[in-house]
Amino acid sequence: MLELSKKAKTTHLSPIRKFYPYAVDAAQRGIKIYHLNIGQPDIPTPKAYFDAIKSADLIADSYAPSLGQSELINAIREYYKRLGIVLNNEEIVVTTGGSEAISMSMFAILNPGDRVIVPEPFYPNYNTIIRAAGGSITPLSTSVENDYFYADSQMLKKALRKNTKAILITNPNNPTGTILNDKDMAVIIDFAVQNNLYIVCDEVYREICFTGDKLTSILKNDKVKEHLIVIDSVSKRFSCCGARVGALISKNKNIIESVTKYAQSRLSVSTLNQIGAACMYNSADEHYFESVKNEYKKRCDVMVRELSKIEGVRVSPPKGAFYVMASLPIDNADDFQKFLLTEFNDNNETVMFAPAADFYATKGKGKNEIRLAAVLNESDTERAISILKKGIAAYNAAR
Amino acid sequence: MLELSKKAKTTHLSPIRKFYPYAVDAAQRGIKIYHLNIGQPDIPTPKAYFDAIKSADLIADSYAPSLGQSELINAIREYYKRLGIVLNNEEIVVTTGGSEAISMSMFAILNPGDRVIVPEPFYPNYNTIIRAAGGSITPLSTSVENDYFYADSQMLKKALRKNTKAILITNPNNPTGTILNDKDMAVIIDFAVQNNLYIVCDEVYREICFTGDKLTSILKNDKVKEHLIVIDSVSKRFSCCGARVGALISKNKNIIESVTKYAQSRLSVSTLNQIGAACMYNSADEHYFESVKNEYKKRCDVMVRELSKIEGVRVSPPKGAFYVMASLPIDNADDFQKFLLTEFNDNNETVMFAPAADFYATKGKGKNEIRLAAVLNESDTERAISILKKGIAAYNAAR
Repeated sequence: MLELSKKAKTTHLSPIRKFYPYAVDAAQRGIKIYHLNIGQPDIPTPKAYFDAIKSADLIADSYAPSLGQSELINAIREYYKRLGIVLNNEEIVVTTGGSEAISMSMFAILNPGDRVIVPEPFYPNYNTIIRAAGGSITPLSTSVENDYFYADSQMLKKALRKNTKAILITNPNNPTGTILNDKDMAVIIDFAVQNNLYIVCDEVYREICFTGDKLTSILKNDKVKEHLIVIDSVSKRFSCCGARVGALISKNKNIIESVTKYAQSRLSVSTLNQIGAACMYNSADEHYFESVKNEYKKRCDVMVRELSKIEGVRVSPPKGAFYVMASLPIDNADDFQKFLLTEFNDNNETVMFAPAADFYATKGKGKNEIRLAAVLNESDTERAISILKKGIAAYNAAR
Repeated sequence: MLELSKKAKTTHLSPIRKFYPYAVDAAQRGIKIYHLNIGQPDIPTPKAYFDAIKSADLIADSYAPSLGQSELINAIREYYKRLGIVLNNEEIVVTTGGSEAISMSMFAILNPGDRVIVPEPFYPNYNTIIRAAGGSITPLSTSVENDYFYADSQMLKKALRKNTKAILITNPNNPTGTILNDKDMAVIIDFAVQNNLYIVCDEVYREICFTGDKLTSILKNDKVKEHLIVIDSVSKRFSCCGARVGALISKNKNIIESVTKYAQSRLSVSTLNQIGAACMYNSADEHYFESVKNEYKKRCDVMVRELSKIEGVRVSPPKGAFYVMASLPIDNADDFQKFLLTEFNDNNETVMFAPAADFYATKGKGKNEIRLAAVLNESDTERAISILKKGIAAYNAAR
């Protein structure tokens, strides 16, 4: 019998993507699906991106440098400069999406058995990526009742284990929409410094902050720069998920040196997508980010408003990013999603979301919770939530 | 003190890419470099690729499905059909280059401490990737004296350890240019089946075979399909390295299921590059592959001929792929490369290659060997080897 690795056997499919085969079946039966499962915006990607790719006059599509094309690195450096963060080109590594930046961070710091503190609910791919690198997550449990708050020194201390190497935070948070203010950030930084931990800070939703604050980056805490690894991406900022262009940023030379090894081992990031991304960064302005943020704010508001009208649903308005966590009056969100795709439709339409159990490392948590991505326009969002409401009633009636 | 992981600390930079900073410096001093270090062809990428990308009319560059766009999967399936290999779409996973296909294979099968048998000299990124997944390489030592032959049951048996999970082979081989014939392949398959091992077969150089045989794939051995994982890529076949589009192919359902988890965790492969790759596969014909192969054959021949003229150089003509391994009359190829980039030039020109020590897992081997990529046209190749010859003399005179 040919064996699989333990990590592969115990890793789960992504709750955001695992129902894809059911969705394909449903679509083939003529069912229209409102996709609230995946953070894939319908907001147009800046035209500069497509224009740059279309006007690139290459004879061969050749490898880019492993650490990224200098035009893109320069553009990212200038983008950070506008945020008040001064970087050298050597502190920026271009990665295949934010996902690869997380992988490379974890390869650089984790030995087998090491632990990473992550507030739960969390982006479930963190779990797969950390396990692939040989580590595991110690969750910081948060809930809607306490506004998903985790910047608490007692809570952090309790999660510390002998082999804890890092804390991984997402700001603004996916899926909870929480935002860390400067005081919160100071608590986490103090904890990391006292306990000799790296802070891996996923900031891919940076511009999508509804509190009126202008978020910059954890990198502004220059005194603790050795501890900081920032994960970044064009996916959400520019509505450009398909480009798979991200970045790992650190002022810790050892981290960059290690990451360079992994970057070289996978050769490079897509050349054409880097050409597009560089132009997109260079042409981006405040108005674009502002309009994108306002659009997501509207959509989140509509979603929260409509969800609140459903009896038994518990939801809290996100402060940033573009997800809404909700607990539903059902027994099991996985079963419910399967039901919506295989047994239910309303006028030949149904809805997808991400069941939240795999957003938790604590067993048993999140079973009746879902994450909804506010990526559809207002009227589609209203329609999707009305389908959800009818689906809840039908599902509970069928039990 | 913030610690790095053991794997990061003990992993080396890629010998193919680690001299890049020196090359940038040299270029800034006005030195022209002949790049024989990296398998980056100057052969044009098929026009269908760029045309498809330029005519893709997207509003947002959105995520592709995690396992790949159906158009590309169909195109890869049809390409294999033309080779006489019948695949289902579910047996093909689109990956970010062949590199990611190797990573995902290793995540799927390796536990910490597990071993993979790899003939040496080998493509050095295998080492980084296998170590990232928690495993390590047991080398099968080959040399120019025995034509880099390793399909020998006694040799294979001697390399077997308790925790050996797989044998990883490259056919045609990078860097040695060896080709496994059906008899050789049968020896390896028997060994793998008897010892319950996976065979990971990297076939990215499939079309570049100089022996007159038309290589298909190890996948034609349908009886042992559970054991087989094939690594594929558009990079070399279509001179399209910058696209980062590859594939993992297996008829083992458990492997595909595990790989799906890792594919979902990194979301997707570049959407535009998949659009281009699908059209490239659909429009490719035998004439294209034949002309590419003939071009590489010419270049390899010129390279071997010119290298043979240098006193003290030992070289054997490759049977496939587009690399030439050579041992040089010098003490240390790493030092020699640094010398060529920092202290030497011939009419303001110099040359890069890949020092071969890191192509070996056995310590001390390959120190005076280099790998040259036959990716330049005939006259540039002649010039590059003449610079190498002068460089050897200058280096040895300076010691």
